[in-house]
Amino acid sequence: MSFLYKSEPVRGARWAELFARRAPEIDFHIWPSVGDPTKVRYLAAWQPPENIAETFPNLELVFSVGAGVDQFDLSRIPEHIPVVRMIESGLVAGMVEYATLAVLAAHRDWLTYATQQREGQWKPLPVRTAGTRRVGVLGMGVMGNAVLVKLRDFGFQCAGWSRSERSLPGVECFAGEQGLADFLARTDILICLLPLTDATRGILSQQLFRQLPQGAVLINLGRGDHLVEVDLLDALDRHHLSAAILDVCSVEPLPQGHPFWHHPRIMLTPHIASMTQPDTSAEAVLDNLRRHREGLPLVGLVDRARGY
Amino acid sequence: MSFLYKSEPVRGARWAELFARRAPEIDFHIWPSVGDPTKVRYLAAWQPPENIAETFPNLELVFSVGAGVDQFDLSRIPEHIPVVRMIESGLVAGMVEYATLAVLAAHRDWLTYATQQREGQWKPLPVRTAGTRRVGVLGMGVMGNAVLVKLRDFGFQCAGWSRSERSLPGVECFAGEQGLADFLARTDILICLLPLTDATRGILSQQLFRQLPQGAVLINLGRGDHLVEVDLLDALDRHHLSAAILDVCSVEPLPQGHPFWHHPRIMLTPHIASMTQPDTSAEAVLDNLRRHREGLPLVGLVDRARGY
Repeated sequence: MSFLYKSEPVRGARWAELFARRAPEIDFHIWPSVGDPTKVRYLAAWQPPENIAETFPNLELVFSVGAGVDQFDLSRIPEHIPVVRMIESGLVAGMVEYATLAVLAAHRDWLTYATQQREGQWKPLPVRTAGTRRVGVLGMGVMGNAVLVKLRDFGFQCAGWSRSERSLPGVECFAGEQGLADFLARTDILICLLPLTDATRGILSQQLFRQLPQGAVLINLGRGDHLVEVDLLDALDRHHLSAAILDVCSVEPLPQGHPFWHHPRIMLTPHIASMTQPDTSAEAVLDNLRRHREGLPLVGLVDRARGY
Repeated sequence: MSFLYKSEPVRGARWAELFARRAPEIDFHIWPSVGDPTKVRYLAAWQPPENIAETFPNLELVFSVGAGVDQFDLSRIPEHIPVVRMIESGLVAGMVEYATLAVLAAHRDWLTYATQQREGQWKPLPVRTAGTRRVGVLGMGVMGNAVLVKLRDFGFQCAGWSRSERSLPGVECFAGEQGLADFLARTDILICLLPLTDATRGILSQQLFRQLPQGAVLINLGRGDHLVEVDLLDALDRHHLSAAILDVCSVEPLPQGHPFWHHPRIMLTPHIASMTQPDTSAEAVLDNLRRHREGLPLVGLVDRARGY
């Protein structure tokens, strides 16, 4: 019985150590080492190998090493094999840090101050309290909710939007198509933490931006394809949006010459908002293996119809 | 009996409203209106007027509208008149926001990413968890402690240093000359929130920077004169310090041509980390007036020998 890991090798080495100690009955292989392919029961990958059904006839479980599975072609993973997303405390903590950083930077005008510094201008802007600022999170999964709780505790007026009804203490919750317009109309700082599916691709578009109040800030921490990039540039140029903080782009690395590189009101980071952490992710996988063995529900099990 | 306010007029107008409602027995004057100077019992100012002892013979209490009194010449305020610093929830909350923003920016390499963006480079750096990062706060007053509690709750390894012994749950506390060296040796991100006194002027110097680990980041949210500016430039040039985030400077506005304006590893904001907020500060002053009337200890009473 073996576990095949196909992703970042440094993290893989750490998983191997932890598996050796915690699940010595499982042979742990780091791609391209595979061992006997008929013994591979579990696979963890950012991108699964080709023809997994044929190559690994006894595969029982596939793990994404990322929070999403949008990079997987689910049609190529046999229906009977459960696919599990990464829900682990290190990945959530990193996202909470980055989202807090981005919201505070928007709230405290850091992009404007950076421009003023370049121009040699010393010009204090009014300091607003968090209680007068309305933050909204698109996506109330494990990450969205953790971000909302942290921002709520800074005193921001917090709201969340999700496909289906949710509730979270101290957070105004909106759901479905109907709720989206109301959610957007009250949101000064918008954070996207949605999964990428056919329903959410291109959701950050002109049509959505129009429903935000004048001067709103967009923070995209989901996937690049949530955003219609030309629509963002247009909304910034018309000063309907005042700034954007982007950790993801449609094409990564962002191509040379792309207008995002030098836009003074865009802060860009290279998809580093959060990373799956070696120790906590190994714990999450080991916990799911135990659940699988005991017939318990898996944490992060993907619903193929929803796509996440 | 009157209260004389000499500071930012918009906040003054708000104080006047709140005083009219909450303390109608007190005539409230906004400088340069003074009314009958012999009736002035209370004065709140950023800079007190000249000759206050002669001009206002019945003055009983002087309030600073700022968290510090370093901008006061205490020798010109008669010894028998208590001087009170501003300790109010709005000012503390703003500082917690800004310090968190600055620490997360340092922790998540935002200054480096801003430089990479200007250079068109997409280059992810390793994501470290907060638990591996050691943050230290110089100054364990109301602000320093509030900042430490917030950062502790993000999972940072937190330590505080103060002149005299303190304790704070989950925070390693250091005190006095002896403790300073140990505190600095374990600090990756250093925040200055000290009062400015003869003992702390110029404390952020080459001698102090030398005791920080290679690659440390300095965040100065105290006063410009805490920092020896040439020593910072030298420590950055030698790459002993990796970056600095400065909200205060020795001369404000920072003079044109000053090297801080265009240093790629300095983020500069124009003394906006926190501002005394109209409503919460009026509440704090009204509370101290009540305490004064009832003979209770004043919140923020300045010890003239210490200078804060």
